[in-house]
Amino acid sequence: MKKLEVKALSKQYPIFFDVDNEAHMIDQFASILEDKHMADQQILILTDKKIDRIYHDFIQSFADRIGADILVIPQGENQKSNQRAMKIYTWLLEHKYTRNAVLIALGGGVIGDLTGYVASSYLRGVRFIQIPTTLLAQVDSSVGGKVAINHPLSKNSIGAFYQPEFVYIHLPFLLTLSRKDYLSGFAEAMKYGHILDAGFTDYLTENRKKILRRDMTVLQEIVSRSCAFKASVVEEDETEKGVRAILNLGHTLGHGFEILSHFKIKHGIAIAMGTVFAFYLAAELNCCDKALYREIYQAYRQFGIFRDIPAFDADQLISVLKNDKKNHREGITFVLPLEVGKVEIVRDLPCDMVKDLLCKFCKEEL
Amino acid sequence: MKKLEVKALSKQYPIFFDVDNEAHMIDQFASILEDKHMADQQILILTDKKIDRIYHDFIQSFADRIGADILVIPQGENQKSNQRAMKIYTWLLEHKYTRNAVLIALGGGVIGDLTGYVASSYLRGVRFIQIPTTLLAQVDSSVGGKVAINHPLSKNSIGAFYQPEFVYIHLPFLLTLSRKDYLSGFAEAMKYGHILDAGFTDYLTENRKKILRRDMTVLQEIVSRSCAFKASVVEEDETEKGVRAILNLGHTLGHGFEILSHFKIKHGIAIAMGTVFAFYLAAELNCCDKALYREIYQAYRQFGIFRDIPAFDADQLISVLKNDKKNHREGITFVLPLEVGKVEIVRDLPCDMVKDLLCKFCKEEL
Repeated sequence: MKKLEVKALSKQYPIFFDVDNEAHMIDQFASILEDKHMADQQILILTDKKIDRIYHDFIQSFADRIGADILVIPQGENQKSNQRAMKIYTWLLEHKYTRNAVLIALGGGVIGDLTGYVASSYLRGVRFIQIPTTLLAQVDSSVGGKVAINHPLSKNSIGAFYQPEFVYIHLPFLLTLSRKDYLSGFAEAMKYGHILDAGFTDYLTENRKKILRRDMTVLQEIVSRSCAFKASVVEEDETEKGVRAILNLGHTLGHGFEILSHFKIKHGIAIAMGTVFAFYLAAELNCCDKALYREIYQAYRQFGIFRDIPAFDADQLISVLKNDKKNHREGITFVLPLEVGKVEIVRDLPCDMVKDLLCKFCKEEL
Repeated sequence: MKKLEVKALSKQYPIFFDVDNEAHMIDQFASILEDKHMADQQILILTDKKIDRIYHDFIQSFADRIGADILVIPQGENQKSNQRAMKIYTWLLEHKYTRNAVLIALGGGVIGDLTGYVASSYLRGVRFIQIPTTLLAQVDSSVGGKVAINHPLSKNSIGAFYQPEFVYIHLPFLLTLSRKDYLSGFAEAMKYGHILDAGFTDYLTENRKKILRRDMTVLQEIVSRSCAFKASVVEEDETEKGVRAILNLGHTLGHGFEILSHFKIKHGIAIAMGTVFAFYLAAELNCCDKALYREIYQAYRQFGIFRDIPAFDADQLISVLKNDKKNHREGITFVLPLEVGKVEIVRDLPCDMVKDLLCKFCKEEL
């Protein structure tokens, strides 16, 4: 089985990749638990109704095999709430879970962030394991230890940097994703090429057909390389004081899109739009080559990533951006690309200028 | 100014001790903020109504000098709640506090634990500073990074290990403490002698009169030595996986007392009772010398620490102990002293045996 070590400052841990069937997956997972002396502990699998509907029998066999309890919560971003976290603490206390307990997040980013957050704070921290089931969670949120719940006023504003014991990526989960969810995750993987390694972009372009038909071998390559990219950034800057900001490329406008669409637009798609706009903005401000922007835009387009972008109002989008928690004072903060592998954080770009360029971008490019 | 370095695994930070007047204290604090490059940041002072009533003018001058906001919350253990934490997050978001912000806990253990918990989780962690105003907080909770709020089912069950930037101990705060609060903190300081250094117990006994009249020089010695004891334990075992459990001596029964009295009995007094009982239990089980138990009991008594212990029901106390979160299965877990500097965690002591010895202790000794 493929394996990658993440060497974060606070902790070193492995990511496992498997392309096998479910029975094999369960065997391998159980033997890792044995190796890591977690097999005899109290274990809780946290998942959501959507995953439970698709994988009900698998989850039961999995839980039986490792002696775990199962907690199924409703699906959706609104579950990353204080209320839901409190209910999980209550469950854990009522079931007398101690500090030696292990929580397993089986699901997408919401389940991973929520489970990780509860694990980081229950009895001042218990162990947790990520089993990301979406492509987005596999290439992004499950690696790096950013865990959080949302506050009604601001997404991800209550949380911690808290690393899992290990991440287990079972690639066949990707076969049951909807087209939109799949593309959303894939868009996030593409971003690593655009910000860190142009060779990865070439690999994706060359394997377009295999990617679209979800070839397991190619997917394992994409996911493991994406995790390695993310891990290399996290290793340098675990608590996002410097270089980790490179991963926030596309997040300024991307977050704005998400909020404006009430989170109906998929995260990876929104970030992809934000990334393309960041390259456009950088090119217009003469920070980066216009040809690079073109190339990147084309790469996204050929995979049909922007096919379902809804119409939006530039004024509304700008006013959402102004409220982003990353903005210190006036104006808007952007992570701008200079070339592949190099970004700059530009603070306080005047709102009017950003708005004019946004309108120009929409008119010329969309 | 006296200074002590805490070298925890996750972070090294100083504890400052001052016996000067308020104006001096403000000057010194402001210059530490300058040194540590925190002077120009958003700063929030969190305190409670009781402290604000006694020190209102001081707090205003202090906040003006360091350019801080002030948030005054009601007083009491029930403020260590999820609801209060949520209100503070809301305040911080509404005032656009960023990741560079600094929270200052000005108060006793409740303010310290709550502020530290919010600091550990707001935007995945902002910096915080402890200014403990009670003797108990000065010698115990402000050092070591244990921060938490209570869950309705269990005290301190939502939290983190999160170290402050520094701790600033202004000893004259102790002059306005009630006799009970003062003795509660003092009892906790005495415990360090009983578990770590018999010489410290001798020092306390020799200085009884000065201690009771709150002599600043003696208090500085007591508090700084207590912090050094605590720091030495925390340095060895920050996240309480082993040796830090020594500090939990007296907590099994002590916690029970607190719960039974609905937290009307002072924490330090309850823990002192728990400590004496732990020595009694150890002596009865032939784990420790009966003479040591006698000596320790006398040391507490001569300071009048058990003067206000209310009557209690042994059956009720035992049933509270059974529900303690530190108990894994059946029976009750105790940290038992073997000699000064050496304890053993004994799990699953039969409830009936503990109850019999508790009744015997009450009859013979109280």
